[in-house]
Amino acid sequence: MAKEIILNADMGEGFGCYRLCDEAALMPYLTSVNLACGFHAGDPVVMRNSVELAVKNGVSIGAHPGFADRQGFGRRMLQISEDELYCDLMYQFGALDAFVKKAGGEITHVSPHGVMDPLVSENESFARVFMDAIKDFKKDMYLVIEAGNVLAELCEKEGLRVAAVGYPDLEYDSDGHMIITRTKALMDPQKILKQALSMVLDNKYLSVDGKQFPIAPKVLCLHSDVPNSLEILRVLRGGLEDAGVDVVRF
Amino acid sequence: MAKEIILNADMGEGFGCYRLCDEAALMPYLTSVNLACGFHAGDPVVMRNSVELAVKNGVSIGAHPGFADRQGFGRRMLQISEDELYCDLMYQFGALDAFVKKAGGEITHVSPHGVMDPLVSENESFARVFMDAIKDFKKDMYLVIEAGNVLAELCEKEGLRVAAVGYPDLEYDSDGHMIITRTKALMDPQKILKQALSMVLDNKYLSVDGKQFPIAPKVLCLHSDVPNSLEILRVLRGGLEDAGVDVVRF
Amino acid sequence: MAKEIILNADMGEGFGCYRLCDEAALMPYLTSVNLACGFHAGDPVVMRNSVELAVKNGVSIGAHPGFADRQGFGRRMLQISEDELYCDLMYQFGALDAFVKKAGGEITHVSPHGVMDPLVSENESFARVFMDAIKDFKKDMYLVIEAGNVLAELCEKEGLRVAAVGYPDLEYDSDGHMIITRTKALMDPQKILKQALSMVLDNKYLSVDGKQFPIAPKVLCLHSDVPNSLEILRVLRGGLEDAGVDVVRF
Amino acid sequence: MAKEIILNADMGEGFGCYRLCDEAALMPYLTSVNLACGFHAGDPVVMRNSVELAVKNGVSIGAHPGFADRQGFGRRMLQISEDELYCDLMYQFGALDAFVKKAGGEITHVSPHGVMDPLVSENESFARVFMDAIKDFKKDMYLVIEAGNVLAELCEKEGLRVAAVGYPDLEYDSDGHMIITRTKALMDPQKILKQALSMVLDNKYLSVDGKQFPIAPKVLCLHSDVPNSLEILRVLRGGLEDAGVDVVRF
Repeated sequence: MAKEIILNADMGEGFGCYRLCDEAALMPYLTSVNLACGFHAGDPVVMRNSVELAVKNGVSIGAHPGFADRQGFGRRMLQISEDELYCDLMYQFGALDAFVKKAGGEITHVSPHGVMDPLVSENESFARVFMDAIKDFKKDMYLVIEAGNVLAELCEKEGLRVAAVGYPDLEYDSDGHMIITRTKALMDPQKILKQALSMVLDNKYLSVDGKQFPIAPKVLCLHSDVPNSLEILRVLRGGLEDAGVDVVRF
Repeated sequence: MAKEIILNADMGEGFGCYRLCDEAALMPYLTSVNLACGFHAGDPVVMRNSVELAVKNGVSIGAHPGFADRQGFGRRMLQISEDELYCDLMYQFGALDAFVKKAGGEITHVSPHGVMDPLVSENESFARVFMDAIKDFKKDMYLVIEAGNVLAELCEKEGLRVAAVGYPDLEYDSDGHMIITRTKALMDPQKILKQALSMVLDNKYLSVDGKQFPIAPKVLCLHSDVPNSLEILRVLRGGLEDAGVDVVRF
Repeated sequence: MAKEIILNADMGEGFGCYRLCDEAALMPYLTSVNLACGFHAGDPVVMRNSVELAVKNGVSIGAHPGFADRQGFGRRMLQISEDELYCDLMYQFGALDAFVKKAGGEITHVSPHGVMDPLVSENESFARVFMDAIKDFKKDMYLVIEAGNVLAELCEKEGLRVAAVGYPDLEYDSDGHMIITRTKALMDPQKILKQALSMVLDNKYLSVDGKQFPIAPKVLCLHSDVPNSLEILRVLRGGLEDAGVDVVRF
Repeated sequence: MAKEIILNADMGEGFGCYRLCDEAALMPYLTSVNLACGFHAGDPVVMRNSVELAVKNGVSIGAHPGFADRQGFGRRMLQISEDELYCDLMYQFGALDAFVKKAGGEITHVSPHGVMDPLVSENESFARVFMDAIKDFKKDMYLVIEAGNVLAELCEKEGLRVAAVGYPDLEYDSDGHMIITRTKALMDPQKILKQALSMVLDNKYLSVDGKQFPIAPKVLCLHSDVPNSLEILRVLRGGLEDAGVDVVRF
């Protein structure tokens, strides 16, 4: 049976006159996007444009909520209360949904942005809040998250839909953990393709020192804001399809 | 046949630790509120709290969108494009709707805040954008607006629901136009009641120099941020009911 | 020799149409204020007004920098870098200084707001950044801070001016630590005066269970945003003066 | 006698992770920059970095204040009061000055950004406010502005220093007025150089239909956010120097 994968990237991350990537160029190579909701990035016009682009390209739309910290792009931990997190999530979901419904689409998934990810992935009480927001807003949304963390397990136990994600363009240390750098340097498309094929076909990913770790991704998430992201996506999508992988939507 | 009126006020206008009125005290005297949506005022926690309070008190919830200018409280004209207005409206509607649906309610009406009111009431192209946002988001929402302006007529022609509003706590000049002052001084409850009764029972309102002008309000809108707003609402609701007026919801 | 004390409060904490206290009423009872600088609270008009009020009342003006988090009023820890803290401080100092100089005054002191206080008081690397910003901006500013913490000791070692602060309107637990609540309830002026007199005359403060701890304040800081702050300040200033304490400026 | 000109561009217009140009690459070709002050663009870290880069490159630093509208990049007219304008200016001047003084420089000039330019250039009461802010903050700053408008004449009459600016990379219509487009398309360096040489050597500028209009610029201002801005600046600086023009600082 052919392997399937969803090709995903964060988008809608511009603001006012600022842009981080050329979404119209990248979108055709993707089958899914996570759209910023106006807190860490994005604004109403940016969101509407990205939603329309996604619908036009037949790309699944997910919510990508973050902390209300534009200056830090949602990457600085903010000590919010559980109640604030809940309300921030509902607000962002609702705002995005207005554009998605108008464009004739629907929100298929959700993925926490920046440091909201570790907050809700590793801390049970915040994980519960994130899960509650999913259930209260649209309980059939997929949660796109690394497999096995607190949030993933909580949602699975509750019967929610969880889609494990792999990041083929990140490097992994000797313990299999992501090495997060904020440099937006050129990346090697062939190296990323190799990691992606390993993830999808062999259900393994490789650390920088050559160790193998298990992974069974439903989604591969790529970074759209590196200088050669277009080339990377082209190589990746072509390479996956050449290897017989079905690149599908949610 | 008994006359009916909807008693309405703007609420949800706090932000962070700031509050403009005691909503829990005022809400029982109202049958409808217009809730700020996080642009000119309000934030996700404030909105959720006001929505829950409204649902608990059986009060109809309306959207009160404004310009993204907290410092000016949406009262400084901002030269936005029609496209920006449309997106700002959809964003605010969607964000509010997430809280309203979760609380088991629905958005029954919409009213533009501050200087967004003259922009969309008097300018045909912006009026059309406002109408389009209503149609695209929830076409059975009532538009709460002064009768006879460009927006009201456009919406009526299009078959949308329009609810004429009267402001019994404002003063009107010799030409029947509202005198808008930003002072939050004490106001005389009996004077407001008299104007309200005139509006509802006689379909007339009085200018400061005693002239009479026609009005047929479905909604009376009161200011919640004056020091004695609680007393005013108590007197007003009591006085209207004593006069046999049915104070109803949307 | 007569004891001296500086009576101080945080002010300039309004924003747009929001206000937390009546500064014109309170200012005459104070000899020093810490003014918000437009990040956690305050805006350019609010700042200019508070500066002018302070100069008119002969009150010393201090900078009260905070995190750029209006919604959380600078009370939610934000994981900023040392470099970001430095730049945020210089920006806020400079902005306030423009108004102070224009009004013919000078910034006499500085006090970190909200959770910026523990961040820079207890963490040596952030303490060093705060000290560097003082040295780089205006090295004769007093640092108003609790005695004995990392920042206070660092600044003293460096030859900067440190003014120990006491909070007579807070309660202290059995270990002598402040009990911080965010309720803005009425407080008992006599109880606050008693604590203040103990702090100033006996160099001791009392915990809620009656224990005594040493303190030698140069400054007493009061909260301006409780409902009866005017009465408290009146009682406090009168009581201190009746007891022969000189209430002085920086 | 050799002609002199100051080569100028707006900079410091990034925000958080967003950047509009590569300042380190462009700065060596300039002798003056106008730095955004955190309202329409810029943030404390961005400002500090641009200030340091300017000082390192021996480039004169000017303030480039704008409306507090990041989303609209200060290009949407905002109906602020004269009082708000004054306070917004002082705040921005002061904030920038803190970084400039620390870096060992001084603010040499000021130029209004975006739609603040027409507001203060053409309207006498707002022009007077802008002039007052210059006088109150640092009265020896040059005002960089188009010659002959209300603000320029007011400042000259008052004895302030006014530096006439020319925009060689903009097009001018048949009446000699700037044609402002927001497209960031490639521009022709040779065409810009030709216009610049005409402005500096012949004191004339050319409209799109070949008409000539008088101009006597002390400053040429270039746009830093077009894709080939580096090439343009290189050609422009080289071409001016080859033609014997002294490219000088303030």
